[in-house]
Amino acid sequence: MPEITDDILKKVIKVRESDSYKGKYGRILLIGGSENYGGAIIMSTEGAINSGAGLTAVATHSVNLTALHSRDPEAMYIDWRNKNLSDLIKKMDVIVCGPGLGTSDFAKGIVKMLRDNVNEKQTVILDASALDLISEDKNLMPLNAGHIVLTPHQMEWQRVSQIRIPFQDDKANKAALKQLVPNGNATLILKSNRTHVYGEDGNVYVNTAGNPGMATGGMGDTLAGIIGGFIAQFGPSIETILAAVYIHSLAGDILYKENYVVKPTEISKLLPRLMKKNAIKSGK
Amino acid sequence: MPEITDDILKKVIKVRESDSYKGKYGRILLIGGSENYGGAIIMSTEGAINSGAGLTAVATHSVNLTALHSRDPEAMYIDWRNKNLSDLIKKMDVIVCGPGLGTSDFAKGIVKMLRDNVNEKQTVILDASALDLISEDKNLMPLNAGHIVLTPHQMEWQRVSQIRIPFQDDKANKAALKQLVPNGNATLILKSNRTHVYGEDGNVYVNTAGNPGMATGGMGDTLAGIIGGFIAQFGPSIETILAAVYIHSLAGDILYKENYVVKPTEISKLLPRLMKKNAIKSGK
Amino acid sequence: MPEITDDILKKVIKVRESDSYKGKYGRILLIGGSENYGGAIIMSTEGAINSGAGLTAVATHSVNLTALHSRDPEAMYIDWRNKNLSDLIKKMDVIVCGPGLGTSDFAKGIVKMLRDNVNEKQTVILDASALDLISEDKNLMPLNAGHIVLTPHQMEWQRVSQIRIPFQDDKANKAALKQLVPNGNATLILKSNRTHVYGEDGNVYVNTAGNPGMATGGMGDTLAGIIGGFIAQFGPSIETILAAVYIHSLAGDILYKENYVVKPTEISKLLPRLMKKNAIKSGK
Amino acid sequence: MPEITDDILKKVIKVRESDSYKGKYGRILLIGGSENYGGAIIMSTEGAINSGAGLTAVATHSVNLTALHSRDPEAMYIDWRNKNLSDLIKKMDVIVCGPGLGTSDFAKGIVKMLRDNVNEKQTVILDASALDLISEDKNLMPLNAGHIVLTPHQMEWQRVSQIRIPFQDDKANKAALKQLVPNGNATLILKSNRTHVYGEDGNVYVNTAGNPGMATGGMGDTLAGIIGGFIAQFGPSIETILAAVYIHSLAGDILYKENYVVKPTEISKLLPRLMKKNAIKSGK
Repeated sequence: MPEITDDILKKVIKVRESDSYKGKYGRILLIGGSENYGGAIIMSTEGAINSGAGLTAVATHSVNLTALHSRDPEAMYIDWRNKNLSDLIKKMDVIVCGPGLGTSDFAKGIVKMLRDNVNEKQTVILDASALDLISEDKNLMPLNAGHIVLTPHQMEWQRVSQIRIPFQDDKANKAALKQLVPNGNATLILKSNRTHVYGEDGNVYVNTAGNPGMATGGMGDTLAGIIGGFIAQFGPSIETILAAVYIHSLAGDILYKENYVVKPTEISKLLPRLMKKNAIKSGK
Repeated sequence: MPEITDDILKKVIKVRESDSYKGKYGRILLIGGSENYGGAIIMSTEGAINSGAGLTAVATHSVNLTALHSRDPEAMYIDWRNKNLSDLIKKMDVIVCGPGLGTSDFAKGIVKMLRDNVNEKQTVILDASALDLISEDKNLMPLNAGHIVLTPHQMEWQRVSQIRIPFQDDKANKAALKQLVPNGNATLILKSNRTHVYGEDGNVYVNTAGNPGMATGGMGDTLAGIIGGFIAQFGPSIETILAAVYIHSLAGDILYKENYVVKPTEISKLLPRLMKKNAIKSGK
Repeated sequence: MPEITDDILKKVIKVRESDSYKGKYGRILLIGGSENYGGAIIMSTEGAINSGAGLTAVATHSVNLTALHSRDPEAMYIDWRNKNLSDLIKKMDVIVCGPGLGTSDFAKGIVKMLRDNVNEKQTVILDASALDLISEDKNLMPLNAGHIVLTPHQMEWQRVSQIRIPFQDDKANKAALKQLVPNGNATLILKSNRTHVYGEDGNVYVNTAGNPGMATGGMGDTLAGIIGGFIAQFGPSIETILAAVYIHSLAGDILYKENYVVKPTEISKLLPRLMKKNAIKSGK
Repeated sequence: MPEITDDILKKVIKVRESDSYKGKYGRILLIGGSENYGGAIIMSTEGAINSGAGLTAVATHSVNLTALHSRDPEAMYIDWRNKNLSDLIKKMDVIVCGPGLGTSDFAKGIVKMLRDNVNEKQTVILDASALDLISEDKNLMPLNAGHIVLTPHQMEWQRVSQIRIPFQDDKANKAALKQLVPNGNATLILKSNRTHVYGEDGNVYVNTAGNPGMATGGMGDTLAGIIGGFIAQFGPSIETILAAVYIHSLAGDILYKENYVVKPTEISKLLPRLMKKNAIKSGK
């Protein structure tokens, strides 16, 4: 089984060309953050911004606006009840849906609206509550998206796939993924202490980085944002996804050398330097 | 009388096992933060998060939500008027109640609800206003909790125990604690410039660390959060509690070398590194 | 064509005289930040404060107040619906209008009010949405201002000037600028990966600094604030404007050495040190 | 005329005794921060907290609560419309009134309420708008306070004293101060690039530190907070006041070595280290 190692960073993180403008690095929208879980969408947003997305917008409960901007003025904001959200979705390259979304009827309506507005040029990353909602109603899957990335941890995957954790082997996981997204445009990132990535290419990749100091709330939200930021810049290939998964863990490993617990916000802060180092290393 | 020294850290702070997930490091709920004292629950939360609790939730006045998330997006939030709070309490491993709670009738209702919903698998840490409320009505003590930790300073203990400060000797304190929690499941942390810990084991431990730069508002709130974070991860033993008390003072001593006044939020920031150092030292 | 190099910093950034008071370094007002784009006005404000403006005020949607003060307590605030805004405008030395302003009817009213209240002692910097509004209605241009600085990127300039990007050469740009501001009191900063500055003196200056890591949301908002801060302190000369453009890029280049993506807020943070270094170098 | 030099720090900043508790270092209340000037009271609060006040409370417009706690959870809060404010005033050792207060009728009511509730054990520091209000109505002076400290800059002093700036010599200033506070319990800190302190002892002290990088909004607010924090801990002597004035400028001078503009919030951040260094030096 192919392992994800730091070679992948050198393949993916390109030194930027000088004739750049922000539109070139993608438009990303992150949807999530109910009244109770506003921190989740903030942490996800920090993953996207710090990994270098060109333009970052956040659709969330209005109660989260000020905390978001206190930390991240780079993010644009839209109240998730705003009727223009469906139009905004259409203009995006990447949409992350789920961090702190919750499973209310309103949240379900959001996922439905997302499903009804995405197109084949877009990548949708489904995380956390979005997956829980889909586990209850498979019709919510945004099948019109060009690419779908699912980022469940093992318990969430059990709910979506109906495969109990001990039985989550590669064969069963692939079959369940195929059933969920019959057109094959889906990547499954099954998070555990040894995360597996099931690519559209049929391969299964195993992450070799990561550590137990990362077992803390918000780590998955941050990963979803980084995956979004990477796809916005580097395109929706399997290499991009693997690089995002790997750099998240690599940043965690660097922090873990000095810290007993790794705060997800610290991972995001480290990204610009870590990406630079690997872009330099790549010799491009 | 046994002294609390840095040996205790090596006993308690275990290097995490590689097959970790956040649920393994405990669920902690912090309840407090009225309109006037929102900073207290924020500082307590920072103690819990930075000491490594797996999942941290905060029940507070809605006015404190944004400041909380501006500083600590890792925390989940529930409005303390939310009817689901009683259900949330039941799902927790550790509950800290009191920082900035205030002594209103509403606050009293919160403590009553806590009392009515805890069970023997849980540890409840009672701090600040929660102790004041209990001093007025002993029936508020959450006797169904598996373990109770009281963290008064001397004046708060005078109000709860009815023992005036000059008469707060070990014998009197033990007797008062026994009267307050007859089943013996209580630990008393009597904060002073020479904090004493009265364990469930009947022993009295004296803290050897700490300094006068720590004599500033918010220090106790932070300690309550750290105790909660430690118990969430390492279980409710006397060693865990002693380690939490000690590391709080140790962090303060390190900061005091360079700072005339030690800010409680700086103590929390130092914890991940300080815990790492001691986990390494332990050779595990 | 003259190039903007770091000589310009030594010419402009004067070591302050000892008999200083804050009024001496100018009063600046920044107008912008709708409900959706509050971060833009915050980033612009950070450019102004960190470049050393004496007194900084912000007129914005009330929803942005708390995030602004959480980050920048140095800024004074006025709700942009406040009727006193027109009086405040009259007291300012420099007004930046546009970052995150949006193009609503209300925003249009703001630009109109600005136009009706500025005088020949003031400099007005028009950025982002303000330029879009002017592209729809040329009568919104605040022609009574002593100096006008326009800071469009190429697409915004296309909308204002009606010159499509491939045809934006110096001759056409100068002619369009003359048409927009017939009295010749306007400077055009046409942002691209090789920013051109069209001075009131008829010269065109090319920026030699900058990098593709700066291609991220908020970079232009920050530049507008820095230009404002520089003019507030050093006066509205072409040298001042060139120095502001250059230092923004220089800070970006320094950060880019270590960071894959350059966050605009980091540029602002770097300004006090970078200005100090260049003020020292100048030998004044 | 005696000069204020760094000897004063060694006299005042005592190494804390080990049997400390937070009540020993004073209770300080800061009143200010209207809807428009919330940043001022935040900066003043940061001066008080970082200089080591034992307990810090802030009475301000409710709109400022969240920004305050986002930055400074150590501060307790009371809505300045709260009827309990008069009772809270009575419990304080030091009250700072004025930063960002504004000059509305409501603000005037606050100053009146302060006047009516202070007693001879308390020190009141009057800054900014509080001085402007008193310049309009001399009866607002809180003459019952044990000590009054006025911290005008030259223009504010012109309004309060009716002495135009060119005529603000020592003799005239002393006479005006005597007229404003006939019982002689007042200290005047007349801020300029060469701040003079007129003590209750009749002496005039000249500050030798400070620099033109400090000519920026919020510098005076921060000074008022530091004076409050020093008096809370070290008592209301002339030495305490001189040490507070001096350390504010000294911190500014240290920052100015590396920064073109000195942000007031950076001065507050530097205080714990700077006080520690000088407490060590004192050999106590």
